[in-house]
Amino acid sequence: MTVRVGVIGVGMIGQDHIRRLTGVLAGARVVAVADVDPERARQVAGQAIGVTVHATGLDVIADDDVDAVLVASWGATHEEYVVACIQAGKPVFCEKPLAPSGEAAGRIVDAEVAAGRRLVQLGFMRRYDPGYLALREVVAGGSIGAALLVHCAHRNPTVQPHYVADMAITDTAVHEFDVVRWLLDEEITAVTVHRPRPNRHGGDVQDPLLLLLETESGAFVDLETSVNIRYGYDIRTEVVGEDGTVELGPVAPVVVRREGIQGSPIAADWQERFEKAYDVELQHWIDSVVAGTAVGPSTWDGYAAAVVSDAGLTSLHRGGRVPVALRDKPGLYLKDR
Amino acid sequence: MTVRVGVIGVGMIGQDHIRRLTGVLAGARVVAVADVDPERARQVAGQAIGVTVHATGLDVIADDDVDAVLVASWGATHEEYVVACIQAGKPVFCEKPLAPSGEAAGRIVDAEVAAGRRLVQLGFMRRYDPGYLALREVVAGGSIGAALLVHCAHRNPTVQPHYVADMAITDTAVHEFDVVRWLLDEEITAVTVHRPRPNRHGGDVQDPLLLLLETESGAFVDLETSVNIRYGYDIRTEVVGEDGTVELGPVAPVVVRREGIQGSPIAADWQERFEKAYDVELQHWIDSVVAGTAVGPSTWDGYAAAVVSDAGLTSLHRGGRVPVALRDKPGLYLKDR
Amino acid sequence: MTVRVGVIGVGMIGQDHIRRLTGVLAGARVVAVADVDPERARQVAGQAIGVTVHATGLDVIADDDVDAVLVASWGATHEEYVVACIQAGKPVFCEKPLAPSGEAAGRIVDAEVAAGRRLVQLGFMRRYDPGYLALREVVAGGSIGAALLVHCAHRNPTVQPHYVADMAITDTAVHEFDVVRWLLDEEITAVTVHRPRPNRHGGDVQDPLLLLLETESGAFVDLETSVNIRYGYDIRTEVVGEDGTVELGPVAPVVVRREGIQGSPIAADWQERFEKAYDVELQHWIDSVVAGTAVGPSTWDGYAAAVVSDAGLTSLHRGGRVPVALRDKPGLYLKDR
Amino acid sequence: MTVRVGVIGVGMIGQDHIRRLTGVLAGARVVAVADVDPERARQVAGQAIGVTVHATGLDVIADDDVDAVLVASWGATHEEYVVACIQAGKPVFCEKPLAPSGEAAGRIVDAEVAAGRRLVQLGFMRRYDPGYLALREVVAGGSIGAALLVHCAHRNPTVQPHYVADMAITDTAVHEFDVVRWLLDEEITAVTVHRPRPNRHGGDVQDPLLLLLETESGAFVDLETSVNIRYGYDIRTEVVGEDGTVELGPVAPVVVRREGIQGSPIAADWQERFEKAYDVELQHWIDSVVAGTAVGPSTWDGYAAAVVSDAGLTSLHRGGRVPVALRDKPGLYLKDR
Repeated sequence: MTVRVGVIGVGMIGQDHIRRLTGVLAGARVVAVADVDPERARQVAGQAIGVTVHATGLDVIADDDVDAVLVASWGATHEEYVVACIQAGKPVFCEKPLAPSGEAAGRIVDAEVAAGRRLVQLGFMRRYDPGYLALREVVAGGSIGAALLVHCAHRNPTVQPHYVADMAITDTAVHEFDVVRWLLDEEITAVTVHRPRPNRHGGDVQDPLLLLLETESGAFVDLETSVNIRYGYDIRTEVVGEDGTVELGPVAPVVVRREGIQGSPIAADWQERFEKAYDVELQHWIDSVVAGTAVGPSTWDGYAAAVVSDAGLTSLHRGGRVPVALRDKPGLYLKDR
Repeated sequence: MTVRVGVIGVGMIGQDHIRRLTGVLAGARVVAVADVDPERARQVAGQAIGVTVHATGLDVIADDDVDAVLVASWGATHEEYVVACIQAGKPVFCEKPLAPSGEAAGRIVDAEVAAGRRLVQLGFMRRYDPGYLALREVVAGGSIGAALLVHCAHRNPTVQPHYVADMAITDTAVHEFDVVRWLLDEEITAVTVHRPRPNRHGGDVQDPLLLLLETESGAFVDLETSVNIRYGYDIRTEVVGEDGTVELGPVAPVVVRREGIQGSPIAADWQERFEKAYDVELQHWIDSVVAGTAVGPSTWDGYAAAVVSDAGLTSLHRGGRVPVALRDKPGLYLKDR
Repeated sequence: MTVRVGVIGVGMIGQDHIRRLTGVLAGARVVAVADVDPERARQVAGQAIGVTVHATGLDVIADDDVDAVLVASWGATHEEYVVACIQAGKPVFCEKPLAPSGEAAGRIVDAEVAAGRRLVQLGFMRRYDPGYLALREVVAGGSIGAALLVHCAHRNPTVQPHYVADMAITDTAVHEFDVVRWLLDEEITAVTVHRPRPNRHGGDVQDPLLLLLETESGAFVDLETSVNIRYGYDIRTEVVGEDGTVELGPVAPVVVRREGIQGSPIAADWQERFEKAYDVELQHWIDSVVAGTAVGPSTWDGYAAAVVSDAGLTSLHRGGRVPVALRDKPGLYLKDR
Repeated sequence: MTVRVGVIGVGMIGQDHIRRLTGVLAGARVVAVADVDPERARQVAGQAIGVTVHATGLDVIADDDVDAVLVASWGATHEEYVVACIQAGKPVFCEKPLAPSGEAAGRIVDAEVAAGRRLVQLGFMRRYDPGYLALREVVAGGSIGAALLVHCAHRNPTVQPHYVADMAITDTAVHEFDVVRWLLDEEITAVTVHRPRPNRHGGDVQDPLLLLLETESGAFVDLETSVNIRYGYDIRTEVVGEDGTVELGPVAPVVVRREGIQGSPIAADWQERFEKAYDVELQHWIDSVVAGTAVGPSTWDGYAAAVVSDAGLTSLHRGGRVPVALRDKPGLYLKDR
């Protein structure tokens, strides 16, 4: 069976997923697209044969030739499209963040709970990165004891002109919100955002940030977000346990020795750093559509990350420690890990 | 277009390629198989829908539903199948080694030259490994000057019971024969095989070996083959230039600190170490079949490696330095890099 | 000239310095000792020729045969001895911490300012570690831009039975208090101490701690102190600048590949980790005594670290962010770096 | 007791040892010097108090105020001075190489055997390097099984104008001749020298070389000597056993991330790389003089290295594999390790 996919939103990320579905992964075919910019939708559709251009995302979802939907549109539109997919009973892969607020995300939870089955996979691709998978395996294996601390750094060389301060929370740190929950298998309970001396490359954006997260078990997480650090795209995570630590390892294709320096290249951007994770993530989704079961990061994971983001924004703007108040976890998500 | 692939030989490697074509890569479908063991062919075919089981490899090649052929049978049979593909005008991906001798490989060169166009891609997957690609880019870029020496180690934790001493040359070292030619963009001109103190785990097999290769430009290559070293599968390559060096870098998903040791896991086998290279290699082949052009390691590369293997076997059995005598390179292969 | 050194306090650290002065370094000789335990003083003195045992530390200082004094007694006694040395005009090397409180340390500052010249070198040995020296050189060189964040971890495998929670601030974190001031060349302005989930090996001691330091320029420092982490003694420091980062590098005598792991040994304790730093530090002191000038970490550095410790203790016990209030820096210390 | 040392030869290495004996190490004092250049001897002596300048090295040895002698003169003069020390019953530290030929070195063995006790420590400083010590401990510990192969590289950024081709054997590779014997605890039995494509920076000197050594147990050693490689001073050694490998580890004070590269500085020269080894080596010698026993690399070690060098020179000039023929090991050296 070849999964016929409809793609809503064909900007940079949407196009990258189309490339993946078309020329990299097995078992899927893009059959329909829509975009807020109809001309862009037509251009992208024109690069392949048999791709229908729809006027709206809802039309994509309603298209009988579409087996499953990939939502890569602007975050504010996710709620409408994901809920429509749920109501149509169609599996949906939604890029992160699930929704711009915990409240909006909660409505998607409501919709899926009402539907009675999981239909959503959220695009937290790090869960498919070999490094993070190995990290989680060590933590879960118990050989370093209970996790007490996590040290994280999330560094981008530069950001797009439209990047505003809030995005350090909602677009950047949100990856760590999810990864920490997943690595430690527990919820985040409080967020404090600190504002270090700003990077001169950051313009008006407060950068870097230093976030402090607390979890149910009492573990603390320090998280640096630096989005103008120039030198490369670099993601660091170390979990400190009672008996040892585990951290993401070195991944360098080569070591060059020249002019007094022994050096390795650093990834230029997230596409390069997480290329394989994106491939595995989406293949995982295709396979799950064929199997008829939703897997991977769930609506609940998206909701929890959104509530933590809300707390992070509050702390960023008003200062101080902000507790994270999650609703009770519906039974639908209890078995997930 | 979906490439309809016929697979000849469905042992471990053949099955792995079928898995890849079916569930990992884009644009291909397995439609026919054959194996020296018909029962095994039937079992493998039975795992998918619409796969024809043929009595012989030649039948697979002759099948009109087969657009392209993947040869993963025993090395001694490669010549027959690859030549048949060439004569049938069908693109063929052939696992290494191309043939068990330079003479046999030369006949495949003849066939392809007679056909007047490249139809063969050889399974030297290392050319698709991110590490080797980066290594080659640095060497070709000139920043370390001309290559003077190459240090290689090829280590397997254990080998199959059927592994005999010659295979250290024909199955193990042959990867480095190809990689060195490709990295330095020149031919190997002589081989000397030394027999160090044997590993107690090696039984009757002379293991390790220390090979010395010489190239057209006068560069020397030392190559350790160890096939019973227990600790893991480990491939090391360093090119020493006039101004610096470049070597394969560390690829460790995690670093664990426990009990006085800071350690990273080592790959258990070649499947794990070169997983991505295998994926990229075969996708590259599928794409080239669609594009109608053969790319990647060629029949000539397979021929050159086979002649170097011949010299290696002579040195292994009779001792001493054995020159490598290649025929003139046909024009068909002159533009390849 | 051979510097004749009197040693006050001959416990573990005192004895280690005597070993160093006697058998490792050039230009010094131990001529007198005193200890709160006279029997221990006699034993230690008996291991060499010509060492006088005095009843009290003040007698050591008053001994005309003593050119310079090394204070390695319990921290609460440092003030009395160091002030006596200053008043006697004798150079003194004082182990850290300078004094148990900022107030006590301030009185030593007063004494030295009254004396009109520097006579004290404080035992912050990390300033002599090749790694920290290289770190500081990079930060000062400007190639990574202004320092915005510092990530530190200070890990001990175990601690002595007498270790109490306060010592995580006054004995453990105090090293980072000094090193951060020295690396960034500015004062710490506030401390916040967080209490993560406790390590089960820690007994009644709150361990680990997560400290947040702020500096004059607005840089933030997160500092983990873990003193029961079992796996080894491990010190990590990374300075995050506007354009790049610099961190302590790997120092592993060997890499061993065995049983699926590529691993390096981790230092067992601080003696092993900082052996060379201790040697260089004390040779530096001996040389400075000969040269007639005090160098290295000063009384002011000890005072500043003590005031930061005071703030850390307050935060540990009462919670919250505690500002650090230093007095004006006397002219005597203005030229120090 | 302070050892009164006479130094013969005050060129670069001699002066460096004087600096070490005077200002770095414990228990020694330089009291006499001689040099082939009397003016240089006077200058060096003038930098300290109480140093006698002698007309010849033999006068230094004969000086009653000299307890022990350090020979750092030109290699061709070592035999005369070391034999004179032996005959005078004075401990002597002799820089490597012991002598310019196995024959000359053999005469020093004869002299020491006749004297009936060890008086000579040879300046193979690598035996005191923490990396090599750890390497040897792992090999001797047996955890990687018997050693089958050793991979070595010895790289200098540049060499002095007086460096000639033979010195790649006698001055450069000689360090590995000793280190291999010491690591594997057995003698080298044959040498083959290969001449790779020459480095354009090497002028008339054949550089690099690729040496192949064989040992009594049948282990093979490949050794690259590169003396014009520009990028830094770099020493690599990996021992390949039956079950695993061990190699010199990374020793980098810092890791800097800038402009797309994660890099560490490489040592500029051997003084920087082996600074600590030189200190430990010479302190070891001083301590052994006080203890009245010679330790460390012996005359036999110097002799064996010289005979291997002879074989290496023969192979360099005439080509081919040259066996190493050592005399029987005198009982005096049987207990050494």
